[in-house]
Amino acid sequence: MDFITILGLVAATLSTLAFIPQVIQTWQTKSAKDLSFAMFFLMFTATALWLVYGLMLSALPIIVANGTILVLLGVILYFKLIYK
Amino acid sequence: MDFITILGLVAATLSTLAFIPQVIQTWQTKSAKDLSFAMFFLMFTATALWLVYGLMLSALPIIVANGTILVLLGVILYFKLIYK
Repeated sequence: MDFITILGLVAATLSTLAFIPQVIQTWQTKSAKDLSFAMFFLMFTATALWLVYGLMLSALPIIVANGTILVLLGVILYFKLIYK
Repeated sequence: MDFITILGLVAATLSTLAFIPQVIQTWQTKSAKDLSFAMFFLMFTATALWLVYGLMLSALPIIVANGTILVLLGVILYFKLIYK
């Protein structure tokens, strides 16, 4: 595997893991006032499109990363709706 | 331009625009308590790697999207540090 591919995989992994601390923090504090609903909603929509894009190209890294991010964003949006 | 490429461009544009409502909300409320520093820091690092990835591939859409996102994430991280 060449350096550019490894760089892309590291970037994709970090992008995916990034949402986990937000899920944990909001879960623990039960407070989501400062989170922009529009930001997470737009990101959820974009991630769903990336997932379709990955599926159409049968690109496994895009499918796995965006499938995972979609679930995490879904949890954050749910928290935003219930904790305000 | 084929459908898959258009889909990818729409997804990239939405991913980029998504951060703007968060910048505006945090700017207006001066409150960033509920934002996870770890989330935005990990995302900033990942975006910087995506930018290097795009530069190494001379892939203009990746460079433009991630360059813009990097600036917006930088602003959000700055707000997180000053507004707590």
